[in-house]
Amino acid sequence: MNIEKGFDKIVKTLRVMITDQPGYLGRLTTAIGSEGGNIGDIRLISSGLTHNIREITVYVDNDQHLEMILKAVAAVEGVIVEEVIDRVQQVHEGGKIAVRSRVEIKTIGDVRKIYTPGVASICRQIQQKPRLADTYTAIGNTVAIVTNGTAILGLGDIGPVAGMPVMEGKAVLFDHLVGISGVPILLRSKNVDHIVDTIWHLAPTFGAIKLEDIAAPDCFEIERRLVEMLDIPVMHDDQHGTAVVVLASLLNATRFTGTRLQNATIGIIGLGAAGTGIAKLLMAYGVKKVVGTDLNPGAMEMLQTLGGEPTNLAGVMERAQVVIATTGCPGLIKPDMVKQGQVILALSNPDAEIKPQDAMTAGASFAADGKSINNALAFPGIFRGALDARASRINNRMLIAAAKAIASHAEEGELVPGILNRNVHLAVAEAVARAAAETGVIKPRN
Amino acid sequence: MNIEKGFDKIVKTLRVMITDQPGYLGRLTTAIGSEGGNIGDIRLISSGLTHNIREITVYVDNDQHLEMILKAVAAVEGVIVEEVIDRVQQVHEGGKIAVRSRVEIKTIGDVRKIYTPGVASICRQIQQKPRLADTYTAIGNTVAIVTNGTAILGLGDIGPVAGMPVMEGKAVLFDHLVGISGVPILLRSKNVDHIVDTIWHLAPTFGAIKLEDIAAPDCFEIERRLVEMLDIPVMHDDQHGTAVVVLASLLNATRFTGTRLQNATIGIIGLGAAGTGIAKLLMAYGVKKVVGTDLNPGAMEMLQTLGGEPTNLAGVMERAQVVIATTGCPGLIKPDMVKQGQVILALSNPDAEIKPQDAMTAGASFAADGKSINNALAFPGIFRGALDARASRINNRMLIAAAKAIASHAEEGELVPGILNRNVHLAVAEAVARAAAETGVIKPRN
Repeated sequence: MNIEKGFDKIVKTLRVMITDQPGYLGRLTTAIGSEGGNIGDIRLISSGLTHNIREITVYVDNDQHLEMILKAVAAVEGVIVEEVIDRVQQVHEGGKIAVRSRVEIKTIGDVRKIYTPGVASICRQIQQKPRLADTYTAIGNTVAIVTNGTAILGLGDIGPVAGMPVMEGKAVLFDHLVGISGVPILLRSKNVDHIVDTIWHLAPTFGAIKLEDIAAPDCFEIERRLVEMLDIPVMHDDQHGTAVVVLASLLNATRFTGTRLQNATIGIIGLGAAGTGIAKLLMAYGVKKVVGTDLNPGAMEMLQTLGGEPTNLAGVMERAQVVIATTGCPGLIKPDMVKQGQVILALSNPDAEIKPQDAMTAGASFAADGKSINNALAFPGIFRGALDARASRINNRMLIAAAKAIASHAEEGELVPGILNRNVHLAVAEAVARAAAETGVIKPRN
Repeated sequence: MNIEKGFDKIVKTLRVMITDQPGYLGRLTTAIGSEGGNIGDIRLISSGLTHNIREITVYVDNDQHLEMILKAVAAVEGVIVEEVIDRVQQVHEGGKIAVRSRVEIKTIGDVRKIYTPGVASICRQIQQKPRLADTYTAIGNTVAIVTNGTAILGLGDIGPVAGMPVMEGKAVLFDHLVGISGVPILLRSKNVDHIVDTIWHLAPTFGAIKLEDIAAPDCFEIERRLVEMLDIPVMHDDQHGTAVVVLASLLNATRFTGTRLQNATIGIIGLGAAGTGIAKLLMAYGVKKVVGTDLNPGAMEMLQTLGGEPTNLAGVMERAQVVIATTGCPGLIKPDMVKQGQVILALSNPDAEIKPQDAMTAGASFAADGKSINNALAFPGIFRGALDARASRINNRMLIAAAKAIASHAEEGELVPGILNRNVHLAVAEAVARAAAETGVIKPRN
């Protein structure tokens, strides 16, 4: 299951020379779009007397698809492709993150403050009063981003090192959006005991632990055990980050349709990490009836343990007023399964279980796909709020507060806001910190 | 044993108003010095008609010592202490390091390059060709700085969290001197198996492992096992970093005295991590005769295993042409033990086993204390060189190359160069990388 938008697209940048007359850029973009290329940024690089140079970012499915688009573009009069640039490769060169000094070193006097002999007095103070580590070290602002590489995006079990670019991407977003230091930790193990042991041993380094892209069902046990053992927040993002964004989306979707979410029967198709996280959070929010289905009997049992009702695909579609699909199977939901007035979030990417327009035509009152359901809306503010509040855990009240903050920042007609709006992350952090205080999960100042 | 300079001094900054006439600053510094305060930077903050404001950094032993100095300063006419500032506390606030993005995020298009969907193609490439992780992730430029807090500076077993300011200090130096990302990892364990297991599990995250401030004898076994298990460089800095700087110092000291190091009998007093590391490296350098002593029988046995000869303090002083003391016991070496023509490095800080001037008076041909023996001369360039060369380990040839590079950069009459000279670190890195290539420890490009 993967609900991150078009996770397997290739990103290329075409550097093109275009005749500077009305209509040429239009014909070019039309040619790209007609071949199924999605267009991203278009940047004007230089402006000449008769021609402009532009760089056009295009999202394509694979190399053959790129060839088709280039052929179509070649047929457009007045447009010449000068170069196909791989900005994705470029931007990854040398890695996307670095550990940097926050202090200036100009003289040996500076060294003697941050290193020996000055540092010793800070060490002694922390030894005597451990909470001073929050003030005088980076620990309280640092989150481990831990994976064993078993469920990287929708790519599956590609191993921890091949998953590093995703972990670095999360760390970039942490830094950019909320100023948290995200430290990737790549674990070479698929053994739950070893993973738990390793994280327990290194946990003093961090203010919180973000588990990432670890496959179900191990992710559930790893998270449960670490939450029990550690006095810092531990959150598996694929479960709870996704659930928060889905809840935010549903708060707005049901507002559009006039459905009352708590009283609705919610149907979840696909009970992996995301589906199970969504089920948990919706029940915590007050939803009384959750039905769900999965091909894996273990996942069905788990749903029952949580208080949900296992059924089959037909059963979900028959009974649910709100359907959430996280299966990774494009086209799984046929139009004739859709009931009149259903709200349908078909979240698999790049291709949904049912296209929103098809669901609407078949009678849904609201339908959306996974394009805008991005964990990056949730995790930065959740961890920022938990760290700011010195929370010892992340509980459902904090997650629900995050979802409400996200939902309230969506522009009219949208399910959720864009991820680059820092105000959203600030609002999430504040709501999460407040909920932590209200639910009494703040660590004592020992 | 601690040989870092004055590791337990307190650093205070006095903000003083001084009459702007010849002699006043002189009387002030004399008053501070007469009470045993060491003066660091003196900065002119503002210059008035009749008075200047200056900030004077003073290294003191403890709060009572500071009081004595302030009393002495108060007695100086024309000088008023306005404020005693703790710049060390200030510079530690919020921690000294942060994980930062190396890429710009301005538009959602940027996000789509560094995160989904763009990142997936990089993940797939690394999955197919693991060596591409060197190019497209931060791993190859990142070194774990791992401690369990059992031997932090000379403070002893203060625990991993209280040791964090030292680890962050190393990371600051890594960044500042050679552009390496240093990631502190604090382990809550004193069990060798658990420590080795934990590091083994998380090792794929890093290009190299720097073990730090782990007590002897566990440090020896931990390092040995990790070197065997991992295909990335692992180095316990307290052993080898120190040894490199000591070898560099000896290369210059014996040059001054005309002693031939390989043929000299070397005596080592104190066989902890540093003393043992020094013994190993000197034997690797070609020294044929090493005698040593320690109160711990286990340490004596280890010396014998390495090919050295255990004896007692008197035996060392009687037989060695070059004596290196790393005991942490001030005044351990009495002047009447010194033999005519001995070279003596008494490295314990803040107070040496014998003061250099006393050793010289007693007949030594050369004597120095530990003021300038700073690991920070060695570790940045050693790791930079090992990473640049894609070395799978750090061997003695690489360490000896580092020592020679350091020694050759000392100014005339000095044992070693200053640590803030980036050219030294560059030269060390180049020498280490060359030695790695020559000794065939470069990882294959798989």
